[in-house]
Amino acid sequence: MNRNETVSEIRVRYAETDQMGVVYHTHYLVWCEIGRTDHIRSFGQSYAMLERSGVRLAVAEAEIRYAASARYDDVVRIRTRVVRVQSRAVTFAYEIARVDDGVETHMASARTRLVALDDDGAPRTLPSGLKQRLCEALEPAT
Amino acid sequence: MNRNETVSEIRVRYAETDQMGVVYHTHYLVWCEIGRTDHIRSFGQSYAMLERSGVRLAVAEAEIRYAASARYDDVVRIRTRVVRVQSRAVTFAYEIARVDDGVETHMASARTRLVALDDDGAPRTLPSGLKQRLCEALEPAT
Amino acid sequence: MNRNETVSEIRVRYAETDQMGVVYHTHYLVWCEIGRTDHIRSFGQSYAMLERSGVRLAVAEAEIRYAASARYDDVVRIRTRVVRVQSRAVTFAYEIARVDDGVETHMASARTRLVALDDDGAPRTLPSGLKQRLCEALEPAT
Amino acid sequence: MNRNETVSEIRVRYAETDQMGVVYHTHYLVWCEIGRTDHIRSFGQSYAMLERSGVRLAVAEAEIRYAASARYDDVVRIRTRVVRVQSRAVTFAYEIARVDDGVETHMASARTRLVALDDDGAPRTLPSGLKQRLCEALEPAT
Repeated sequence: MNRNETVSEIRVRYAETDQMGVVYHTHYLVWCEIGRTDHIRSFGQSYAMLERSGVRLAVAEAEIRYAASARYDDVVRIRTRVVRVQSRAVTFAYEIARVDDGVETHMASARTRLVALDDDGAPRTLPSGLKQRLCEALEPAT
Repeated sequence: MNRNETVSEIRVRYAETDQMGVVYHTHYLVWCEIGRTDHIRSFGQSYAMLERSGVRLAVAEAEIRYAASARYDDVVRIRTRVVRVQSRAVTFAYEIARVDDGVETHMASARTRLVALDDDGAPRTLPSGLKQRLCEALEPAT
Repeated sequence: MNRNETVSEIRVRYAETDQMGVVYHTHYLVWCEIGRTDHIRSFGQSYAMLERSGVRLAVAEAEIRYAASARYDDVVRIRTRVVRVQSRAVTFAYEIARVDDGVETHMASARTRLVALDDDGAPRTLPSGLKQRLCEALEPAT
Repeated sequence: MNRNETVSEIRVRYAETDQMGVVYHTHYLVWCEIGRTDHIRSFGQSYAMLERSGVRLAVAEAEIRYAASARYDDVVRIRTRVVRVQSRAVTFAYEIARVDDGVETHMASARTRLVALDDDGAPRTLPSGLKQRLCEALEPAT
């Protein structure tokens, strides 16, 4: 348990399953977005507010490894942490697990690198306040 | 066959199936949107251009009846026609069928009523050019 | 407030928005599914269990009217109630509202008719236990 | 141009956009699936048939880098090739580009590693016929 990670929970929707009987693989990346939204919210500012202030965080790279399959109605826990902060980008890492009777089963690990864009979609630096909070979240737990 | 209807075809994506082994029901309404986009394109103007000119068509009502299930990799045909034109709204009707070896199997019928909005999301009248084309499409085939 | 209605809440995901800046219209019907899943869960049996026991509820008809638009990060409340029970089908009605500081703003009303299918996708009657619970939920609040 | 790559084309759906005004990032991975489905179809057997014969290809790893954004109504071209074949897995690579007046603009590069599963979701070897075709597709163009 990382002191700086945030924890989000969702329940798998029927709409997220596919005919293999498990969750279609791209939805895990939607859950990652929920994780990083909650992580940013823990700084005291929502991503929605951030976007209205003229800063967008666009996914520039994503990678994910699947270990087990989520199923309909599963309770899924997403643990999100900041693993790298650059002047114009931030990288989040995610651990995704199914939770049953309090027991977690690891399902997937993912990383996404996000770049800051202005209202016109041009690259910009991260706002200093956000960058500071991301850097603090990055510090190793003590 | 209605002279004024347009015909669109798509192939069912794996992502559109659910664990019942068939297409998740809301995706048919996404196909309807493809149908009406193609219908508008047949007027010589894309919906994308229309939106850039400051007119949005937002779905105000939708209804759909399912008769049979679409499956992964099916070729699906969407027949789209205009059934009502008002000063600020237009209603499209859709017939959705699976096509196999040239034989159509009816799968669903739907209707959507769209209202015209300006860039700020306020109601507005349909542009006169668009309205005229929609009214012409509405005329009974002779 | 209907004594027999159930209340579900979700937060709008970024993935659910479209370039109009609001939620894409079909996602409201996904939220309805969350509503009816929670409604069935309130009977003491999950829909997931129901499906494993050989009963599927497939959407046969859906209709929805939109009054206002949901936006990213909105908290959305779905009120679900049973409005009709037949031997092989059940109809749910939904009221969808945005909640802000405890104030609800009505966004959409929907209905879906679901038919019972067996494992092979053939029509079947509703299991008697489920039908009884649905009929009880149907009774007017006193 | 690789002799062994296959080319797929889709048109961006409104449902695929998000409020940033561009395609939501996970949909590119859905397009990759369309690419590999077409690639497998080029062997003379559809993935749908493969699945009915008891072989499923489940995504075990995915990575994607975004260079430019796709927009509503863009025509998108997906070039798919096989880059690694193992006894129980195959890795595909994808180049995704927007096409406008015949000119391609690179938008994203992706890779997905798929593992073969049987009907019960247990790992299995690739069927020998499929493996042979994948290995042939892997050969450098001459």
